[in-house]
Parts: sequence; structure tokens; C-alpha cells
Amino acid sequence: MRDFSRDHRWLSINTATVRKQWKLAQIIEACARHDIRAISPWRDQVAECGLDQAARLIRSHNLELSGYCRGGMFPAADAKTRQAALDDNYRAVDEACKLGSSCLVLVVGGLPGALDGKPVYKDIARARNEVHDGIAALLDYARKAKMPLAIEPLHPMYAADRACINTLEHALDVCDALDPNRTGVLGVALDVYHVWWDPKLREQIERAGKDRLLAFHVCDWLPQTKDLLLDRGMMGDGVIDIPRIRGWVENQGYAGYSEVEIFSAANWWTKPGDDVLATCIERHRSSV
Amino acid sequence: MRDFSRDHRWLSINTATVRKQWKLAQIIEACARHDIRAISPWRDQVAECGLDQAARLIRSHNLELSGYCRGGMFPAADAKTRQAALDDNYRAVDEACKLGSSCLVLVVGGLPGALDGKPVYKDIARARNEVHDGIAALLDYARKAKMPLAIEPLHPMYAADRACINTLEHALDVCDALDPNRTGVLGVALDVYHVWWDPKLREQIERAGKDRLLAFHVCDWLPQTKDLLLDRGMMGDGVIDIPRIRGWVENQGYAGYSEVEIFSAANWWTKPGDDVLATCIERHRSSV
Repeated sequence: MRDFSRDHRWLSINTATVRKQWKLAQIIEACARHDIRAISPWRDQVAECGLDQAARLIRSHNLELSGYCRGGMFPAADAKTRQAALDDNYRAVDEACKLGSSCLVLVVGGLPGALDGKPVYKDIARARNEVHDGIAALLDYARKAKMPLAIEPLHPMYAADRACINTLEHALDVCDALDPNRTGVLGVALDVYHVWWDPKLREQIERAGKDRLLAFHVCDWLPQTKDLLLDRGMMGDGVIDIPRIRGWVENQGYAGYSEVEIFSAANWWTKPGDDVLATCIERHRSSV
Repeated sequence: MRDFSRDHRWLSINTATVRKQWKLAQIIEACARHDIRAISPWRDQVAECGLDQAARLIRSHNLELSGYCRGGMFPAADAKTRQAALDDNYRAVDEACKLGSSCLVLVVGGLPGALDGKPVYKDIARARNEVHDGIAALLDYARKAKMPLAIEPLHPMYAADRACINTLEHALDVCDALDPNRTGVLGVALDVYHVWWDPKLREQIERAGKDRLLAFHVCDWLPQTKDLLLDRGMMGDGVIDIPRIRGWVENQGYAGYSEVEIFSAANWWTKPGDDVLATCIERHRSSV
């Protein structure tokens, strides 16, 4: 297992972590200032910056991309909306290529309409079928573009509105169905926040193997979580045994970045961005 | 599948649903008034009423108990606390017998201290081992008392603080390990709120079979859930396809009560108790 205590060579910052403090250009400058070598930006931040300009800034600051957030959201109420979602995913692949990302992270979507409080249907198996078909269609496109797709299983509390793939086992079932030969174009983004509770986590990480482990995200589960979406904790402040999980992942040969992704409306989004990055570095070295 | 639309013969009320409106004696009277045939009371409510008095009231109103809430909370920081938890579980079995309950529901506990915001350790596998050992010890006692134990898998968002058994599959693994001969003394309480998202739900319900399906709880998952504990929805107001799940359960031969268990700080706990019960009846007939 790699020793993270000496430096932060393998730290990546998901740009949502400081999205309330800075725009993307400022985040890139701040990461360079803190000697952070990689980021994972969000599409809306890239769009605001301009794709070409974002690509230039990333290159000129010698940053790598541990992922690009995000494609997915496949299920839809009707065929037209479903096609629009797919077209948007094709664009996400193109953008990921342009930015030089290592993968496109997929948050696959849940019951159509649930995010707005009005689910169009309740049959989650149907949503899962639509996700399967959506990834299948996108995979052909991604394969030609040589852009790996990383399915991110989300915590079951997001099953209705954000992602109906909620366990690593399920994500790997989809990978095995669509890419049985493990070509490298389909795998998972493993975020400890979403999967730490799973009694089958170790077994499924071993099943995944290096081929499927495309990204590793960290933050912490706070024991008294106040909000389902915006109350993620800083590594070390919660209950997740992150080094144990990282050990399992690295035992499979994963040697990429450890990406900090924190949405924290009441805490980390309210602090100065430089303080947040300094804390991410300190906790990366002490608690990951 | 039984037709619930005609009457509410198979409706049970978990007494937490109206705990802010009434004490147990009033709940019992109200249920009788609404022609509700079964309840599932909580230990603190029974203690407040007095165990003998509660047993008398339940008998005199011809109520059945679809469960008794709750035993469990096995993991502890040290041996003394662990033994105290076990002793308390023995008392819970005795109370369940005295009240004539069909089972004692087990919320097994999570990381010791996490409920108070200070987890003593982070090794969830260790907590799961302590749960296994706790249930094993309690099972001997329950077997002699002829009181079935119903492990309730809780939603993964409660893994840290309330229950580290978070899937039906895991609960059934524990059942199979401790009661391989399916003697009827160990099974599960299946609450749709906790398990609806699980892609293996149907398969695991079939694995459970009638022997293991000791209780069936309903409420709904609201698409814009505001609180991790106290924002459960009324059946029909959320995203759970309850009739589908009930169909799977009844296909296995389950013929017991459908128990409504709603914690709702901002909504149902603020309404007159009779209105809540009337709504439970209406939704039991239309949405379960």
C-alpha cells in the first residue's frame, strides 16, 4: 500500500469541493499553488469557463484529470427525452477527451422525475433496464473515443433521484454484461462515501480487479449526518475506515489518484478555499 | 395476493406512528375505535404505561401484536456494556412474551458510540461480529421462551449508528448461520423503507421463504427526503412500489399483518392522531 503520509502526490481535488468559493480557473490556480497534481472538474464549471479555455488552463498548469463529472442520468419519461440524455452523454465523452480525462464518471440516474419530486413511474427495475441500455449505447461511442466510462454506484439513499445503481456488485454486473472481455473501456468509480457500509465491499473490490477500478473517491460519513446530499465530512471526521478500503483497492493494483469529493453546505463550502485545500492535503496524508 | 382494498383486517399500526399525539393507552383505544386489529408497540411506551397494564389493555381490546419494538443494539465499547445490552435484550424477550407478541424486532446496532456522534472504533466488520454473537446468545433465550426474533435490515444510511445489517441478504446470512434448520425462531422483519432500493430484493425474499418472513412493514420513501430519520412518508406519497414488494412477500406464503411505521416530525406527527389513523386505513386499502 502506498505511503501517503510523506506528500500529496496522489491527491486529486474534485472541483465540487470548493465550488462555492471559486470558479474553475481559480480552482486550477489554487491547486497549482498547493502543489496538487490532479483535479476532477464538473461539466457546469467547465461550461462556465469555456471548454477550450479549461483545457488550456489544465494543460498549462500540468494538471491531470482523475475523472470528469459527469455523464449518466439515462432513464427518462419518454423516448425523446431519453435520446436527448444520450446525446448529452456523447458530448460529455467529447469534452472528457478534450480535457484529457482518465475517465468519464457516470451517475446513472434514478426514477425519471424523482429529482423534481414527481416520479413518472415507480418500477426501479425498469429504470435499471434503461440505465443498462443507455450505457450500452454510450459504450460504443466511448470505445471509439477511447474514453473509459466509470459507473459510480451511489449510496442507496440516492436510488430514487440520482442513481439506481447502488452497490459495487450491481455496477460490476453491468460491467460484466456489457464488457465481458474487460477491455478497459468500462469500470467503476469507487467512492467510499457510497459504499463503505456494504458487507460485500471487499469481496466485490476483489471481483472488480485493476481493470475495473477506474477511480477512487474519498470523504467521510458523519455519524450525525444532517442532509442527504450536502453534509459529507472531511476524511477523518467520520466513521469510514478509509485506509482499510484503500488497502483493498490497492491490493488489486490500483495506483491512481485519491480524489477528494466533498459537498458540505454548512461547513467546508463556507470556509476560505485555501484553508479547505490545506485541510484536504493534511487529511490525505493522515487519514486516507 | 390478498385484496386489501375491501377492509383493513390486515393493517397493524406501529405505535411510533402516533407517538407524539398519544400515550400507549390512548393509542390502543384509538385503534379499537378505528377497528384496527393489531399494533406493534415500542418498549419505552410500554414502560411508561406499565407492562402489566399494557398487557391488560391489549387483551381487553382484542389486539394482536405484529411485533414488539425492539431488541438489538448489541455492539458495545467493552464487555460490561455488551453484557448489559444482552441482559436488556433478555428483558425485551420477556416483555414480548407477556404482551403476546408474534416476534421481537431486532435493530441490531452499529458502531458503538456512533449514535452519540463519537464512534469508539470504525471497523464495521467487528461490529457485525458482535451482532452475530449477540443474536446467538439471545437466540438460546428466545428459543426457550418461544419468542421468534426478527432481524430488521435497516437502510444503509443507518449503518453507522443504528444497524450494521443493511441488506436482506446479510440478514438471511445471519439467520442461516445461527438457525440453519429454519426452526421458526429466527427470521427477518422486512420494512419496505429500508430495502426497496435493493436490486437483489426479490431474489432474497424468495430465499427467505415463509419461515423467515416474520413481519412486513410499510411506509414510503419521499423523493425529497429532508431528514435521515424523521421524514418517512405515508404509503402512496413516495416512490416505493409497495404492492409489488408485498406480492413477492405473499408469494412466499406470508399471510400476516402489514404494519405501518412512520416517523414524520414535520408532517404526520403534527396532525391529529385520528386523522393519521384514518389516512393509514385509506392508504392501506389503496396503496399497499
